Amino acid sequence: MKVAVIMGSKSDAPKLEGGINLLKGFGVDVDVRVLSAHRTPRELMEYLESIEGSVDVIIAAAGKAAHLPGVIASQTLTPVIGLPIKSSTMDGLDSLLSIVQMPKGIPVATVTIDNGDNAAILAAHIMTLKYPELRDKLSDFRKEMADAVLKDDETFR
Amino acid sequence: MKVAVIMGSKSDAPKLEGGINLLKGFGVDVDVRVLSAHRTPRELMEYLESIEGSVDVIIAAAGKAAHLPGVIASQTLTPVIGLPIKSSTMDGLDSLLSIVQMPKGIPVATVTIDNGDNAAILAAHIMTLKYPELRDKLSDFRKEMADAVLKDDETFR
Amino acid sequence: MKVAVIMGSKSDAPKLEGGINLLKGFGVDVDVRVLSAHRTPRELMEYLESIEGSVDVIIAAAGKAAHLPGVIASQTLTPVIGLPIKSSTMDGLDSLLSIVQMPKGIPVATVTIDNGDNAAILAAHIMTLKYPELRDKLSDFRKEMADAVLKDDETFR
Amino acid sequence: MKVAVIMGSKSDAPKLEGGINLLKGFGVDVDVRVLSAHRTPRELMEYLESIEGSVDVIIAAAGKAAHLPGVIASQTLTPVIGLPIKSSTMDGLDSLLSIVQMPKGIPVATVTIDNGDNAAILAAHIMTLKYPELRDKLSDFRKEMADAVLKDDETFR
Amino acid sequence: MKVAVIMGSKSDAPKLEGGINLLKGFGVDVDVRVLSAHRTPRELMEYLESIEGSVDVIIAAAGKAAHLPGVIASQTLTPVIGLPIKSSTMDGLDSLLSIVQMPKGIPVATVTIDNGDNAAILAAHIMTLKYPELRDKLSDFRKEMADAVLKDDETFR
Amino acid sequence: MKVAVIMGSKSDAPKLEGGINLLKGFGVDVDVRVLSAHRTPRELMEYLESIEGSVDVIIAAAGKAAHLPGVIASQTLTPVIGLPIKSSTMDGLDSLLSIVQMPKGIPVATVTIDNGDNAAILAAHIMTLKYPELRDKLSDFRKEMADAVLKDDETFR
Amino acid sequence: MKVAVIMGSKSDAPKLEGGINLLKGFGVDVDVRVLSAHRTPRELMEYLESIEGSVDVIIAAAGKAAHLPGVIASQTLTPVIGLPIKSSTMDGLDSLLSIVQMPKGIPVATVTIDNGDNAAILAAHIMTLKYPELRDKLSDFRKEMADAVLKDDETFR
Amino acid sequence: MKVAVIMGSKSDAPKLEGGINLLKGFGVDVDVRVLSAHRTPRELMEYLESIEGSVDVIIAAAGKAAHLPGVIASQTLTPVIGLPIKSSTMDGLDSLLSIVQMPKGIPVATVTIDNGDNAAILAAHIMTLKYPELRDKLSDFRKEMADAVLKDDETFR
Repeated sequence: MKVAVIMGSKSDAPKLEGGINLLKGFGVDVDVRVLSAHRTPRELMEYLESIEGSVDVIIAAAGKAAHLPGVIASQTLTPVIGLPIKSSTMDGLDSLLSIVQMPKGIPVATVTIDNGDNAAILAAHIMTLKYPELRDKLSDFRKEMADAVLKDDETFR
Repeated sequence: MKVAVIMGSKSDAPKLEGGINLLKGFGVDVDVRVLSAHRTPRELMEYLESIEGSVDVIIAAAGKAAHLPGVIASQTLTPVIGLPIKSSTMDGLDSLLSIVQMPKGIPVATVTIDNGDNAAILAAHIMTLKYPELRDKLSDFRKEMADAVLKDDETFR
Repeated sequence: MKVAVIMGSKSDAPKLEGGINLLKGFGVDVDVRVLSAHRTPRELMEYLESIEGSVDVIIAAAGKAAHLPGVIASQTLTPVIGLPIKSSTMDGLDSLLSIVQMPKGIPVATVTIDNGDNAAILAAHIMTLKYPELRDKLSDFRKEMADAVLKDDETFR
Repeated sequence: MKVAVIMGSKSDAPKLEGGINLLKGFGVDVDVRVLSAHRTPRELMEYLESIEGSVDVIIAAAGKAAHLPGVIASQTLTPVIGLPIKSSTMDGLDSLLSIVQMPKGIPVATVTIDNGDNAAILAAHIMTLKYPELRDKLSDFRKEMADAVLKDDETFR
Repeated sequence: MKVAVIMGSKSDAPKLEGGINLLKGFGVDVDVRVLSAHRTPRELMEYLESIEGSVDVIIAAAGKAAHLPGVIASQTLTPVIGLPIKSSTMDGLDSLLSIVQMPKGIPVATVTIDNGDNAAILAAHIMTLKYPELRDKLSDFRKEMADAVLKDDETFR
Repeated sequence: MKVAVIMGSKSDAPKLEGGINLLKGFGVDVDVRVLSAHRTPRELMEYLESIEGSVDVIIAAAGKAAHLPGVIASQTLTPVIGLPIKSSTMDGLDSLLSIVQMPKGIPVATVTIDNGDNAAILAAHIMTLKYPELRDKLSDFRKEMADAVLKDDETFR
Repeated sequence: MKVAVIMGSKSDAPKLEGGINLLKGFGVDVDVRVLSAHRTPRELMEYLESIEGSVDVIIAAAGKAAHLPGVIASQTLTPVIGLPIKSSTMDGLDSLLSIVQMPKGIPVATVTIDNGDNAAILAAHIMTLKYPELRDKLSDFRKEMADAVLKDDETFR
Repeated sequence: MKVAVIMGSKSDAPKLEGGINLLKGFGVDVDVRVLSAHRTPRELMEYLESIEGSVDVIIAAAGKAAHLPGVIASQTLTPVIGLPIKSSTMDGLDSLLSIVQMPKGIPVATVTIDNGDNAAILAAHIMTLKYPELRDKLSDFRKEMADAVLKDDETFR
């Protein structure tokens, strides 16, 4: 039960930390890397080859012309989740479109802008196909979320 | 190896047919339904309950304020792929944002606007976790796509 | 004379407080709840069933892929007002489109982004159909608004 | 049980016809007018004064810098529904923003771009406050919509 | 040589002050008012009637669904300059489109978002038709602007 | 009473013809030219010098990165009206922003995308400062427009 | 004097043909290829290695999540021109942002959406650094463009 | 080996400084100027004439209706790189479109919004055509960037 989390730049880390902790809390091994599709293409390819078949899902986060998730998806048969990161201009629209609008044949599973938690939770849902025991953990997680909402609800009633 | 394909309106079908055929070509059972989150919420819930645990991935296609994928995702632990459909206004941006910008906790794996093929191919990648034999089929599919590009390339060289 | 105000997250409360106070000032009972279409769908449905026929208007506020108003509208015959909340990305456009672009048959009465006052005032206008005495209160409110503008105008003349 | 439907230009009529017929089918009197906030402001004001208190809801449709619904809302205490019409440029975004982004105090109940049906249906929901018999008609209408979806669903099963 | 400056809300004043001072520096009488198209429509109409023929240009500033400039333009034959004000959402796009996209027949001369100086300078250019002496003042103003740029240029050479 | 109409490309002519005829109908001399800010900058400058002081208003139409109106405005003290032309991409937003968002000091009076009529009518309003007799013609034109709306209104009553 | 033109899909060819002919008319050798960053990454890399040092400029055209120009730029020191292609959704904004918003260090010289001519002409301007004789050809080309505008201008004078 | 860097306003300088230093570090002469297409058109033209043939690349930075790069490109055969600057409204979209969407014949090589480094690096890539020794420097620069990424990567492994 292993997820590779690849960010295009160290500055994306704060958006990913919550999700990494969620995965670890689910008992998932997480391999976190900083590798750039444009600045370290060779190291990225080597890393992807090294993990092919041994990780269950890859999460890739990137901003601006966010090519990282799509470039990874073109090099692996492992499902790739793309996390668009909002940068200082264009309010996240650039990274969202650069990740989600992949051409026919090489899809990227795109999630909410800046929401590393959702990238992690989607990875867990995907891994339930192989590790059914994750279903209970996700079910518990949903209950906790519901309880948090209901607790907030109490304060307004 | 089974995928449920749910569209919010019959008019979305042409965007999905190619992907459904791709899945069938991969040997995947496909259950195609027309169910609306807003117009047939009860039937949608009943259907989702009936398939919980027996389908591997759910693909949901919807246009405009495209709530269908998110509403489904909130009712199942099965991974949900959202396909934004472009309608007559807003050039697909409305359905894209309505599907991808899900709140923390309930992610939808969003793919290219109007690209049912990518929804299907992503479903296949996800199912490789449980059915490793799909890897070869996806690998072959990639080779076919590459060959098609290279054949086009020949005509220009 | 009763309005239900439902927010998808406690963090939406500051955008709603002004409107809630306006309604109370008009003599309207207000029931404020925190319920999520995705995280507490069952509790939401139960609440909607419990109030069907006993509240006159429902105000629903949500951000991002703001499904809450539309999901509520699909479960009730009571008029539903949708308040789009701006989140940290996309400048409110995502929630606006997710709320206003409802498919044929299940409309949501959408108001200004982040403007809980307008949600409340629209609710009051709608309730004048049943409680004509509200017309005087709205008329007075308009006079107060006009007086405030004219007072500001004085300072510039 | 009466609705005034005001369009800013005769060219908006095709987007409204379906909704007008829906209202008539519900037994609602419909008064249809072509009046422009900018080209016939005096006639518009006269008409609004003439109907104050005698219509239950006003539907106003307009394109581009769609001021009509907001200008009407500022002149009446009757609830105003705004229908954004897509013109040849800006894909409907201009009329949507011009209608929905009203300042504090004068809300317009905005519905789906180009969707006159939703304007009509929202008017009916609002009128249930005064004419409870409309609830049954709306309930029947929802059943018909659901049946249409389920009939479409049959063709795919 | 007189310009009326009308703002929809006192909060727009900081965006207009620079332009008002520019006009005064050109020797233009400026009449500054706070009047809302929606909250004080009657007072606005009275004011417009009172100045018809006695002011040369009207500048109208407004944010969000910025109807003020268009509503004024429909009530006067005096040229109307519209200044879009950026509010807390939509980055100024809503007010820009609400002002510039006027229907055939009632144009508004729209200028840069939040740039009251440009509204004032455009007013001066328009007034040169009647007061040719303004040409020299505008010419001097341009020279001052050029000198300021060239002084900045010096610091980099 | 003279207006110069400059288009950046012959293909913009259909968007301008209506407005040119309107001006001629008002008794205004119209000088129509095709001159590009980028492809014929020298001829554009020569033309602008030749007309300085002898035309009352300049209308400039351009699409895409529509620099023509702003470049003209920087070379003349005559008021410049900018008409954004929609091209095959970006739905007119590129030309609108390229024309309206001028920096401090060099404003362009921007009108509705693709609406040459409004450019012409705005020119006429501006020329009333120097030629008061145009007020009657504009007043008549408004009456005609109002009559056309009221005639349309008749067909619906 | 050689330019490599790489398109991500055969369907982009019509947008490139004019530019390819322009380059040939300038006496430039043009190597046209169809190679996809995602579907044929290996062949793309092999081709890029084979031309490194022997072509002067690379033009890359792509639509949607248009990664091709950026991926090429990360693999070569040759200047890369990116041509955004408009696809059936998002009006070209997706490909524009995916090409232009490259992260620090790996720039792509982005030109007008769908305008292969501009990609070719920019390539020629860049090649003047090495082949000064191209300056005369570009100068002549500009004269032809100016003459075409002036001929159009004649028809309107 | 010389680059002219022209900014439309002194306030753009902070976005350019990093790139200017990069160029100097590559041994490139840099001529930095503040010149406005609209406020100092004559001085701009004089400067462009003075450098024609003696600089290898021109970098032009501008915000809002960013005409500077396009106006320069129309006056020179030297390659022009356009740097869009984000201003206080429209999140950089206005300057991006005003720079990149140039009409046929006069392209501007547009780079990432607010990213002066990429403007400088693109200039260096272009200059490799004439100064092959720059290839080694760019190659070293890429290695440094890669090393920085890999060092960041270390901290996460």
